[in-house]
Amino acid sequence: MNVLRVSSTTDPAATVGAMANGFRSDSSAEVQEIGPRAMNQAVKAIAIARSYLAASGMDVYCVPSFASVQVCGAEAEEEDRTGIHFRVCPRHALRTSAARTADD
Amino acid sequence: MNVLRVSSTTDPAATVGAMANGFRSDSSAEVQEIGPRAMNQAVKAIAIARSYLAASGMDVYCVPSFASVQVCGAEAEEEDRTGIHFRVCPRHALRTSAARTADD
Repeated sequence: MNVLRVSSTTDPAATVGAMANGFRSDSSAEVQEIGPRAMNQAVKAIAIARSYLAASGMDVYCVPSFASVQVCGAEAEEEDRTGIHFRVCPRHALRTSAARTADD
Repeated sequence: MNVLRVSSTTDPAATVGAMANGFRSDSSAEVQEIGPRAMNQAVKAIAIARSYLAASGMDVYCVPSFASVQVCGAEAEEEDRTGIHFRVCPRHALRTSAARTADD
């Protein structure tokens, strides 16, 4: 699964399209970012995705967790920084899988 | 339901306790914030809450949406600003309700 890396200058509306692609190819999308401004863009993208997908009767939720992200430092050396990783999933898919478990 | 208002100086760990209270009294907690730094604190609080609640076998997810928030302006007049509103819900509660629907 591709992880969408969001920066402070990423356009949230453009991220929505990439997220929708993630829902088509896999059942969820992964979004990763470091720092408050990038986080702001990522959460705005998820909120926009909800409005956008509501037209097709889909709702999404997200599960945030801390993640260690490798970034290139000032001297082109890789360094680890702590960012936030969002798993964004369609809401009814969770219900369907739960319903399936209950049916079994 | 009480809405937790998170600012840029809020301690995320302290927010976790307030969120856990929300889960006890209601089935979900509501978190609201304006601006990138406050958003950062709110999402960190939700990520910490996940680790904290994992010990009791509970996982949480969040649903972000845009919200109009009334704040006091410079001249003590109320003004509307757009913030982000998170509904934070325990994950297994959703599964249980879906399982119940499947059982009916």
